[in-house]
Amino acid sequence: MLEQLKQQVFAANMALPDYGLVTFTWGNVSAIDHGRGLIVIKPSGVPYDTMKTEDMVVVDLQGKVVDGGYRPSSDTATHLVLYQRYPQIGGIVHTHSTHATAWAQAGLPIPALGTTHADYFFGDIPCTRPLSAEEVAGEYELNTGKVIVETLGDNDPLHTPGAVVYQHGPFAWGKDAHDAVHNAVVMEEVAKMAWIACGINPRLRPLDGYLMNKHFRRKHGPNAYYGQT
Amino acid sequence: MLEQLKQQVFAANMALPDYGLVTFTWGNVSAIDHGRGLIVIKPSGVPYDTMKTEDMVVVDLQGKVVDGGYRPSSDTATHLVLYQRYPQIGGIVHTHSTHATAWAQAGLPIPALGTTHADYFFGDIPCTRPLSAEEVAGEYELNTGKVIVETLGDNDPLHTPGAVVYQHGPFAWGKDAHDAVHNAVVMEEVAKMAWIACGINPRLRPLDGYLMNKHFRRKHGPNAYYGQT
Amino acid sequence: MLEQLKQQVFAANMALPDYGLVTFTWGNVSAIDHGRGLIVIKPSGVPYDTMKTEDMVVVDLQGKVVDGGYRPSSDTATHLVLYQRYPQIGGIVHTHSTHATAWAQAGLPIPALGTTHADYFFGDIPCTRPLSAEEVAGEYELNTGKVIVETLGDNDPLHTPGAVVYQHGPFAWGKDAHDAVHNAVVMEEVAKMAWIACGINPRLRPLDGYLMNKHFRRKHGPNAYYGQT
Amino acid sequence: MLEQLKQQVFAANMALPDYGLVTFTWGNVSAIDHGRGLIVIKPSGVPYDTMKTEDMVVVDLQGKVVDGGYRPSSDTATHLVLYQRYPQIGGIVHTHSTHATAWAQAGLPIPALGTTHADYFFGDIPCTRPLSAEEVAGEYELNTGKVIVETLGDNDPLHTPGAVVYQHGPFAWGKDAHDAVHNAVVMEEVAKMAWIACGINPRLRPLDGYLMNKHFRRKHGPNAYYGQT
Repeated sequence: MLEQLKQQVFAANMALPDYGLVTFTWGNVSAIDHGRGLIVIKPSGVPYDTMKTEDMVVVDLQGKVVDGGYRPSSDTATHLVLYQRYPQIGGIVHTHSTHATAWAQAGLPIPALGTTHADYFFGDIPCTRPLSAEEVAGEYELNTGKVIVETLGDNDPLHTPGAVVYQHGPFAWGKDAHDAVHNAVVMEEVAKMAWIACGINPRLRPLDGYLMNKHFRRKHGPNAYYGQT
Repeated sequence: MLEQLKQQVFAANMALPDYGLVTFTWGNVSAIDHGRGLIVIKPSGVPYDTMKTEDMVVVDLQGKVVDGGYRPSSDTATHLVLYQRYPQIGGIVHTHSTHATAWAQAGLPIPALGTTHADYFFGDIPCTRPLSAEEVAGEYELNTGKVIVETLGDNDPLHTPGAVVYQHGPFAWGKDAHDAVHNAVVMEEVAKMAWIACGINPRLRPLDGYLMNKHFRRKHGPNAYYGQT
Repeated sequence: MLEQLKQQVFAANMALPDYGLVTFTWGNVSAIDHGRGLIVIKPSGVPYDTMKTEDMVVVDLQGKVVDGGYRPSSDTATHLVLYQRYPQIGGIVHTHSTHATAWAQAGLPIPALGTTHADYFFGDIPCTRPLSAEEVAGEYELNTGKVIVETLGDNDPLHTPGAVVYQHGPFAWGKDAHDAVHNAVVMEEVAKMAWIACGINPRLRPLDGYLMNKHFRRKHGPNAYYGQT
Repeated sequence: MLEQLKQQVFAANMALPDYGLVTFTWGNVSAIDHGRGLIVIKPSGVPYDTMKTEDMVVVDLQGKVVDGGYRPSSDTATHLVLYQRYPQIGGIVHTHSTHATAWAQAGLPIPALGTTHADYFFGDIPCTRPLSAEEVAGEYELNTGKVIVETLGDNDPLHTPGAVVYQHGPFAWGKDAHDAVHNAVVMEEVAKMAWIACGINPRLRPLDGYLMNKHFRRKHGPNAYYGQT
């Protein structure tokens, strides 16, 4: 069932330790088959070094397991909220990558300071508001998804392909699982650069709007001219 | 004698350089067989790249060597004090890992700032008071154990599975040697994240209590729902 | 066509991930055959792990592709401006290496603080002024080259073999592609050291002029005495 | 000639890139045969990946090459001054390792902040005064050695087995080449820890004298009890 998507999700999960984004089992990737309304996601707490393609779990949009011998990731409900709200999203990644998580702990958006950022993210990478005690005590993972949606609002999620959840860590997404991992790598790298740049010059200026626009449009949309056609 | 425990302790010691927690011989892991009152511990000053399972030293709870051709770790007395006081502890790790040691040198607890921390440590990772000149001149390693016990008090050591000793470095523990190494890796990672987060925002807020509670309980205790059952 | 130069440019491009200077495809190296007026440059957006020597693109000094099946790097126009202005330059590298990019985001030159810097760069590594909205909306990559030339002026580009472009990142160059990569590695390392040194002592003194002169002359010019003759 | 010492010096030089202490050829190790008054040292500017044991150069205490086909390291005169002044020194290392060099650029000693430091260095790792214009213009490398001697004075060089030269970088030494590399690794690690610790708590207290003494004496001198006898 959904063999190809399972392979993509497995490969995307295995890429997380390769890119230095996860320690132990602290991360998960999912992807959706929008036509069938089914999501493939990493099983909860299974170590990367023994995980296999067939361990991937298939759930429907209500989170019911329809294929697989393991429990799905404990963050499954967060992924589902995002897929339900944004049909543009095809894959989602959650990690506790060091520098992006530090911005989440600092309670601040990752500011757009350079073209590296603008090549992938249009504007700051937002930080959610704190969840309330009620939201945490209730359906916590569902509410985590809701607060990300509240933060993103009607923005195009492929123009802001990630956010940090306050005191928690980064979520990134993209048109598929591979693209989501790509954006998670970028978020960690620009989080590191922004930390260092602000340390060097606390009074630095945010990225000029016209330069942001130029770089984002070089790589995205009808007038993109980066790469091969 | 205690072959299985020796293998576990050897494997746990060898994991320290793999996780980047030690330089040269700066680290040691032990584990206890509570039933027999015997501890297996790394020999003192033996390089990791030539160390073998049979080099592990067996001592009793008074520190007397009962098996093995080497002297036990010079920190053995510290381990013994912890095993004697807390029957919940099955394994102990000492390292000089970079960021946790920096917090020890700063003389501050590693603050709970995010869910990464709360998944393993309930509350700040405490920093001991300075040892007095008398405590250092006397039974130094024994007194190091005592000051950790003084710091932990009646807290459940598996809820606070580590501490930093003032101007010295981190000790971590767990239900066995493998678990203790796991907690030492987490302590180093959250020490790094906390340093960066405080650099980004010196006025950041500590982790909300209800979020701390939620995350710790997701992974620990009767209502845990992370991972496979 | 230009087989040897293609091999040099390919090898220089492949060295970028080996030295940790690039993530994904964020970097490019070119070299020039001044006699024939032809430049060999990396294709745009091709991943390093599948790129081959024959994928290198040959363009003339006006940027017209004269050999190769791919589009040249989107930064080709920047390289061309530098080759046209400075005949001493034989190879050029552009990366988004972490620490050099952070200085670009901070909007500051990388200050000459030690002999490591002076062994390769005579004086600070300059940061360009911001491009105007018109310059970005117009021939952006060409204007990026022009602002580097404006910054360097009549300085010998082999005495200042690199610069950071404001809010963008580093460009480095040298007598050939290999030398340019060498200088890009040095720029990243001295950018890291300068960040740390300024963090340790915000009131540190810049490198004494006579020490700068001594170290640069140890390795460059008629009285150099470093290395083998 | 001096085959065994050449092998030791070659192995010690090759350890520098393994420990991440050098980029390119930025480092050199030497060792002395005090009985014969001969020093074995790395050749100048030869890359680590092609260097062989037989490339090591033998010089006498006046720096005259007595064996070997290459020029000795351009820093040879610095090494000689130290060997002439301190018969306890058997091996010397010079690197531009990142964090120790940053302290040199900051113009500050690396402060003794913890037991990791005190296990190897008794007290701060000193920073030399600036060399004068005359000292730099004259016999620069010789004067670099002299300013290290001026800084160390009558201290036991094995109690302070390293120093940073102002705006330049670290020199470390030990009873032989292997020991000198060991101390260079420690200096880089404690330089990194001290940077982080001072960032976490700018008002931290230096290491208590009695704790310094205890740790240094655990590993050095007649009452040492660390390691195997």
